Amino acid sequence: MTTTAAAELGVAVIGAGSMGADHVRRIDGLISGARVAAVADVDGDRAAALAEGIEGCSAHTDPGAAMAAPGVSAVLIASPGAAHEESLLMALERDLPILCEKPMTPDAAGALRVAEAEEKLGHRRVQVGFMRRYDAEYLRLARLLADRELGRPLLLHCRHRNVSVPPYFTDAHLINDSVSHEFDAARWLLGQEITAVRVHRAAAGSAPEGGLNDPQLVVFETDGGVLVDVEIFGNCGFGYQVQAEAVCERGTARIGEAHGLMTNAAGRWGGSIDQGYLSRFADAYDREVQAWVDATRRGEATGPGVWDGYAVAAACEAGVEAQRTGRRVAVEMAERPPFHRR
Amino acid sequence: MTTTAAAELGVAVIGAGSMGADHVRRIDGLISGARVAAVADVDGDRAAALAEGIEGCSAHTDPGAAMAAPGVSAVLIASPGAAHEESLLMALERDLPILCEKPMTPDAAGALRVAEAEEKLGHRRVQVGFMRRYDAEYLRLARLLADRELGRPLLLHCRHRNVSVPPYFTDAHLINDSVSHEFDAARWLLGQEITAVRVHRAAAGSAPEGGLNDPQLVVFETDGGVLVDVEIFGNCGFGYQVQAEAVCERGTARIGEAHGLMTNAAGRWGGSIDQGYLSRFADAYDREVQAWVDATRRGEATGPGVWDGYAVAAACEAGVEAQRTGRRVAVEMAERPPFHRR
Amino acid sequence: MTTTAAAELGVAVIGAGSMGADHVRRIDGLISGARVAAVADVDGDRAAALAEGIEGCSAHTDPGAAMAAPGVSAVLIASPGAAHEESLLMALERDLPILCEKPMTPDAAGALRVAEAEEKLGHRRVQVGFMRRYDAEYLRLARLLADRELGRPLLLHCRHRNVSVPPYFTDAHLINDSVSHEFDAARWLLGQEITAVRVHRAAAGSAPEGGLNDPQLVVFETDGGVLVDVEIFGNCGFGYQVQAEAVCERGTARIGEAHGLMTNAAGRWGGSIDQGYLSRFADAYDREVQAWVDATRRGEATGPGVWDGYAVAAACEAGVEAQRTGRRVAVEMAERPPFHRR
Amino acid sequence: MTTTAAAELGVAVIGAGSMGADHVRRIDGLISGARVAAVADVDGDRAAALAEGIEGCSAHTDPGAAMAAPGVSAVLIASPGAAHEESLLMALERDLPILCEKPMTPDAAGALRVAEAEEKLGHRRVQVGFMRRYDAEYLRLARLLADRELGRPLLLHCRHRNVSVPPYFTDAHLINDSVSHEFDAARWLLGQEITAVRVHRAAAGSAPEGGLNDPQLVVFETDGGVLVDVEIFGNCGFGYQVQAEAVCERGTARIGEAHGLMTNAAGRWGGSIDQGYLSRFADAYDREVQAWVDATRRGEATGPGVWDGYAVAAACEAGVEAQRTGRRVAVEMAERPPFHRR
Repeated sequence: MTTTAAAELGVAVIGAGSMGADHVRRIDGLISGARVAAVADVDGDRAAALAEGIEGCSAHTDPGAAMAAPGVSAVLIASPGAAHEESLLMALERDLPILCEKPMTPDAAGALRVAEAEEKLGHRRVQVGFMRRYDAEYLRLARLLADRELGRPLLLHCRHRNVSVPPYFTDAHLINDSVSHEFDAARWLLGQEITAVRVHRAAAGSAPEGGLNDPQLVVFETDGGVLVDVEIFGNCGFGYQVQAEAVCERGTARIGEAHGLMTNAAGRWGGSIDQGYLSRFADAYDREVQAWVDATRRGEATGPGVWDGYAVAAACEAGVEAQRTGRRVAVEMAERPPFHRR
Repeated sequence: MTTTAAAELGVAVIGAGSMGADHVRRIDGLISGARVAAVADVDGDRAAALAEGIEGCSAHTDPGAAMAAPGVSAVLIASPGAAHEESLLMALERDLPILCEKPMTPDAAGALRVAEAEEKLGHRRVQVGFMRRYDAEYLRLARLLADRELGRPLLLHCRHRNVSVPPYFTDAHLINDSVSHEFDAARWLLGQEITAVRVHRAAAGSAPEGGLNDPQLVVFETDGGVLVDVEIFGNCGFGYQVQAEAVCERGTARIGEAHGLMTNAAGRWGGSIDQGYLSRFADAYDREVQAWVDATRRGEATGPGVWDGYAVAAACEAGVEAQRTGRRVAVEMAERPPFHRR
Repeated sequence: MTTTAAAELGVAVIGAGSMGADHVRRIDGLISGARVAAVADVDGDRAAALAEGIEGCSAHTDPGAAMAAPGVSAVLIASPGAAHEESLLMALERDLPILCEKPMTPDAAGALRVAEAEEKLGHRRVQVGFMRRYDAEYLRLARLLADRELGRPLLLHCRHRNVSVPPYFTDAHLINDSVSHEFDAARWLLGQEITAVRVHRAAAGSAPEGGLNDPQLVVFETDGGVLVDVEIFGNCGFGYQVQAEAVCERGTARIGEAHGLMTNAAGRWGGSIDQGYLSRFADAYDREVQAWVDATRRGEATGPGVWDGYAVAAACEAGVEAQRTGRRVAVEMAERPPFHRR
Repeated sequence: MTTTAAAELGVAVIGAGSMGADHVRRIDGLISGARVAAVADVDGDRAAALAEGIEGCSAHTDPGAAMAAPGVSAVLIASPGAAHEESLLMALERDLPILCEKPMTPDAAGALRVAEAEEKLGHRRVQVGFMRRYDAEYLRLARLLADRELGRPLLLHCRHRNVSVPPYFTDAHLINDSVSHEFDAARWLLGQEITAVRVHRAAAGSAPEGGLNDPQLVVFETDGGVLVDVEIFGNCGFGYQVQAEAVCERGTARIGEAHGLMTNAAGRWGGSIDQGYLSRFADAYDREVQAWVDATRRGEATGPGVWDGYAVAAACEAGVEAQRTGRRVAVEMAERPPFHRR
């Protein structure tokens, strides 16, 4: 990249579903230094509706056409996970900076192919959408752990609760769509890789009619010897709640507690609970995209990269296997090439 | 008193209303070292019903008869405030140890007469029922202030909220029945006397039909230069809540916050709020009576004494006057005789 | 781009002190739809240093020259308060949209002159920098009150604590620099005007050597009958803390409590306290400037306006008088002209 | 006094260590309806020192002699666990009411022998010292679960942290001395038996020099299909902390959070953490002993009984085996005879 740091990004947004639309609104109205230059969706009408009213923004059904549209200098991928690999490889071939929603790819093998493509290109181009790394509370916990403020971390307790999940959700979705966030967050908070996963089910929670066992307790180990447990509860009914507590040698540190407006009324004290990740992590999404825009304009790639996407895909594969067998399943990972080290 | 420390107290309980009945239950079932020996109430049936089933306990309509009953060696006064002075003087004449519910007397002049009677007797016999001094949280706050842990206290913010007050409550009741607790608590926490009182009313809160202005903000000053403000809210509707926050030179300290069981449900986090002082201060009442029993058996009188009862009565008189006139009213107090110094 | 709505704002920033520099950084790096086109400061070197590195940004010593610089289409005033009126009138004469830091003017008379100038212009051009109106928690409290969720508000308790204030701070600074925020916040939260102010001092807190009495308790009344009390503590030493609790007919609502990262260590649970308003209200500042940019690009003026600046100036004058005399001082305000009604 | 119900208990306290001394102080000074009639300890001087100053209390080296001492009508066993079985059988032979500190016996086989002895006697005589059942917060959680207020329980997360454990502590001590409390609490809160246990270790927490792996995560299952996880941390360093969170079908409920006095100082908000179980559970111990005294005077035995002691011993045996093997270990229990059903 030889352009000056001040060049405004022209972003091709691939995928015009709810996540893609949310990013279009963000880039158009909130993010400094970037504009939406093209939108692509298999549903052309949906792409056109989103592009309408944005000056100089074209609509496409083909991701490649969007990437080739006038003014495009970066790509944001928000299409369904199964379509990511193709778009990633296409954008890497054009040497475009990419912000790719999670999961980077639905499987570890695909993630490895993306890693190889980026390595062949010779410089980092991909940032993966693990937006918790941009959440103010996660950032404070990460700093506390990095500074060894309370000594080395020993345990990490996580809670991940959704009001409800779609009816088609299976046990594997709980791992791939939900616990994948904790896989990345734990790797990032601890600076360690995941080595094995085991899944405990609460028999009482089994839905008799469906395939979904809910909630589950996922326990995984890291190469630094930390034990991580995750309560994943897809249909908790009461709210969206993401919490983490690091147990260290000299103390514990916790994030995700209730805060903000608190009321006393009718015999109760307390507050309301977020009902979804878009409101809970709104600031994180904003910071994430802004950080990507800023780094890209400086000619850099920062944030979670392809190797993070690959590591999480590998952990997910082990997690689903652990869920299926009830056993501890070791995480198999290719050796990390020097290029993909931070 | 020449009896050994281990002598069991035989208590005459004067007043068989809800407060008296609560103390009878406490002494009979919970308090070590004491038993109920007599009960008196103007309503003889009520006294008899309460005495029934307690071995060796007699029932009376006359306080003096109860004090003279066999086995009586101490008196607990829980009759209406207007009847306190007579019973106090009667018990002091018999040189009996006394635990007297608050207000000690409804007026400062009566309190002063009791102080003089005790002084004439030559030793302390009266403990006044300011039970907040026995509440675990108040005790911790008192210790923190006494130790000057955060430097000298400068301000004291108080909240005192009741679900509802009886229909006959007037502005003056808010001072005499409710703020009187803060008058004593502030004196005790700070170790300072109250010098002047002013009352602010919230015009929006005035009950158009009745005489009660609710809530009110009572601001008073101490001879140590601390400014105390009390929100008194008689009909807050949502619960019983007593809070205090001391603002000191190097920090603040707060008690009375929500705790205990906390739930997440239906989009809300939080817990329940006590609905009355008997549940909120149950432990304090238990500790108060036990402390009185223990001190009495050792031949001592500890806890809040007659002078505390007098000081609060004087502050209440100033408070009601401040309420009536809208002006700052100085608290007029007799000089404290050496006998009534701690 | 030819539509008015989409035109990027070229902002002249008047004042290159810490507040001005913070806004320059915000507009340059964070705010979508605006760029810094000119910077003015009486200290020309300071203006030049700030302008350097921003493409197309000129530096000036004269506010008028900055407003006339090429590309300037809006003005942000962040100079000392005493210089505001001149810049405001100058910018209004040029019919430029203005974001003016608080206080709008240091006195009520100056504020009224600005109100008249804007009225003569015939359309709203001025947004005043009361950024609490953009804070997420304040916004939730405002909505709860507007919806009468807990009934009508009766009392509003406020705490406003700074780690320390500069040595030159006087009693009047506490009102004009600090309580002025609560004056505006109360007006906005309640939708009511302030009618009278009284100031209580904690004798214990008086600094013997200096002129500053610290802390103070400011009590004011509104035309809706709500009573507001503000603890203002300039040198609390421990952190920057802004809290508000509305007491309503059916419950209370509180904001500004501790949250975020919480630790257990060395016998203590808890978290850290912000040390200044720039970190506590960082998001509010961002939202404020973004809202101004967005409204301006749509050709509108929203947010707190000139009349809000005037009302606060009038309340400050009464507050300083109340502080000086120890009396309740009525707030004198000119009649609100139809133009300045929302 | 001739009624059985009103008879004052004369308690023989077996064991004069810290726990025994604490109970002697409680019965002597706090508990209504009971007195200490005898103290026994292998160290006769220690027994004598404790008995001194208590009217009519004799000192012994032999538990049997203490039980046979004049005035003894009940037994409280607070000797080391290995000595419990002998004292229990001895007291059952004398048909005396017993309050036995936990663990009832160190092994399941011994517990079963005690169960058989009590069954042969034909009425309940033993209450086991699981004092959490008397803690105010646990009682509220138990009621919430019993009422199915949030639906059926699915998961139970527990934290059990000690400042430090003695140097001789092994992995097995963590189960038998600490997790045994959670074994009983879970059984009681859920009304379900434990069916299998698995232990996860945090490799990072292994003490390289000693035998103790610390912390550990114990996961167990119940016959009602609930999954329970317990963080047991023997040397957490910062305080004594016991927390529980029930995850139910429609919400979660949590106890053990920080409360009471909260301070702001030096850039931190928060409070202090209890340093030991005697302060954290002081009220529970008081209520426990009072409940035992009251039930005994009524001629009844209530609270946790022999079968509870046995069930926990069986779970501990499985837990230690799970710890040793790293496997899921089923809990083997004898069938519950009708006599030992509640």
